Amino acid sequence: MAQHSYSSDAVSQDALSPPDHDYVVGVDLGGTNLRLALADRTGSVVGRWSNRTVGVTDPSKIVAMIGSGVEQLLLQAGASRSAIQALAVGAPGITDAESGVVIATSYLMGWRNVPLRGLLESCLGIPVAVDNDVNVAAIGERWRGAAKQARDFVFVAIGSGVGAGIVLNGQLYHGRGWTAGEIGYMLVPGSSETPVASGRPGPLEALVGGEGIKSQWQGLWSEERTSLPRDLTATQIFDHAQMADPLAQRILQQAARALAYALYDIALVLNCPLFVLGGGVGMHPALRDATRLILEQRGARARLELACSTLGEDAQLTGAIRLALDTANSRTTPLL
Amino acid sequence: MAQHSYSSDAVSQDALSPPDHDYVVGVDLGGTNLRLALADRTGSVVGRWSNRTVGVTDPSKIVAMIGSGVEQLLLQAGASRSAIQALAVGAPGITDAESGVVIATSYLMGWRNVPLRGLLESCLGIPVAVDNDVNVAAIGERWRGAAKQARDFVFVAIGSGVGAGIVLNGQLYHGRGWTAGEIGYMLVPGSSETPVASGRPGPLEALVGGEGIKSQWQGLWSEERTSLPRDLTATQIFDHAQMADPLAQRILQQAARALAYALYDIALVLNCPLFVLGGGVGMHPALRDATRLILEQRGARARLELACSTLGEDAQLTGAIRLALDTANSRTTPLL
Repeated sequence: MAQHSYSSDAVSQDALSPPDHDYVVGVDLGGTNLRLALADRTGSVVGRWSNRTVGVTDPSKIVAMIGSGVEQLLLQAGASRSAIQALAVGAPGITDAESGVVIATSYLMGWRNVPLRGLLESCLGIPVAVDNDVNVAAIGERWRGAAKQARDFVFVAIGSGVGAGIVLNGQLYHGRGWTAGEIGYMLVPGSSETPVASGRPGPLEALVGGEGIKSQWQGLWSEERTSLPRDLTATQIFDHAQMADPLAQRILQQAARALAYALYDIALVLNCPLFVLGGGVGMHPALRDATRLILEQRGARARLELACSTLGEDAQLTGAIRLALDTANSRTTPLL
Repeated sequence: MAQHSYSSDAVSQDALSPPDHDYVVGVDLGGTNLRLALADRTGSVVGRWSNRTVGVTDPSKIVAMIGSGVEQLLLQAGASRSAIQALAVGAPGITDAESGVVIATSYLMGWRNVPLRGLLESCLGIPVAVDNDVNVAAIGERWRGAAKQARDFVFVAIGSGVGAGIVLNGQLYHGRGWTAGEIGYMLVPGSSETPVASGRPGPLEALVGGEGIKSQWQGLWSEERTSLPRDLTATQIFDHAQMADPLAQRILQQAARALAYALYDIALVLNCPLFVLGGGVGMHPALRDATRLILEQRGARARLELACSTLGEDAQLTGAIRLALDTANSRTTPLL
């Protein structure tokens, strides 16, 4: 765990007076893990803390867990509670960033209209901001990642599912009902046209998302077609595609084609020149290269820049720190 | 032609002094026709003028034609040249609305980087605004049509081709290279995946645009399949679909399915609740109804509002008047 760079002696710190209240906390909340980072006002991370969230669905338990993480970080940093100016969370679901309410998450957490910002502000007594996790990762990539200072770009997160964070004119674009960028449900040539039941992967997700790729692999798998095992992850399948396994290559091509078409359609609508691929599946170089090739073959109109996230799994935590810094600068909520 | 509602006696008008300088001009520039409307400061049309543009490709000829139309309108209205505060044009191509340069039109006019705003301002001595025709029609629908006061909506124009004007947060969204909403090239299930040569209809356009629908009809036409003639327009084909001709119904269903999928994809990206269909083909009720039905069958996620333009072929002229009024209010360019 990273150590606080100042002295951990609170007394000497007060005396020397490098400001004791110059920290923010970024939070990456997921269905598997909760990660917190304490950062100074330049955004440098001075401490990290994490905990498992598997099976923890009660919002008040998550809030308490975040509170205890903050305490731990303060202890490590030798700072008092008043040192924290703001906290920001990337939440795994549709989020009203204005009110800080998590409108809906996937079945794993099962949240509906959870006022996460209000709960955290009551618990911690500091200004809090909450936004969707993919949107927060997009903020991170624009601040310190693959989309530095980009006016317009789309961050596409591909993990088990698929979602996008859209930045237009330097601002996150949320859409009327806070669901802009829910691209997992897009219909492209090759995707299934059968309407999808609630909670099931969307048509694009079924071809490009990690869970979808695993299912595609298992659906086509036979001992005649491949010498590889039936139980592989999406990234393992992509690894084997790079090593010329024909079935793995077929799955990769199918994913790359659907992804290329979706990016192309989004680029036509938004006239947006830059796409950043993130997430464990999205950052696999085989997927990026195959997608690029398909776009190049489509000619001039499809010439969009396709980059991989440079922040990787820290994209969301980095974006949350930036959002917390912005929140500290803009809110006038008095500190307790 | 509508008559000016004030006296046409310029002398008595000057004497009575209802302001002589309270007009704007809206211009609908197309490859077939040029239409002008003179409007008062409330946006009421007090005179109209039009001319054929077929075969006229020289920008200076178009500018002179607009100038002569303005003269005619002033004559009809009994107003002096100083009565016009501003003029705005909807241009049939990719347009830089900031500089007023028409970047590219289709082969019919063949314009490349024509500084239309500058040419018109030099010729007329008044502030001029220029934007893409579909964008200007979207302004019209938001001001006085089917999207009144909508914060976010997409206007989809379907004539011989297909294009969209996107309004987000009450403002036109143009995109980085002024091509946002070029949806005719979108790829949806059922559309051709073959890359399209420059100048040819895009994959969505080939199924939904007027020219595309004619081609689809002719490609499938045989005496065994239909008793209708081989040479029909898209709207005639849709009329016959309503009268239960099976081949016409097949073409209609194919168009509606592609349109529904495209609108659904756009709605996922933008999280935009309202779509307004315009243009001669887009306003056909058979297309709207069949598209609605397909969206309804896709379930909750695809529940978007689908309206037909209420301004019809006046959408662009109405939007141009509004744009001219906004230009008159915002520009400080001294009048000659």
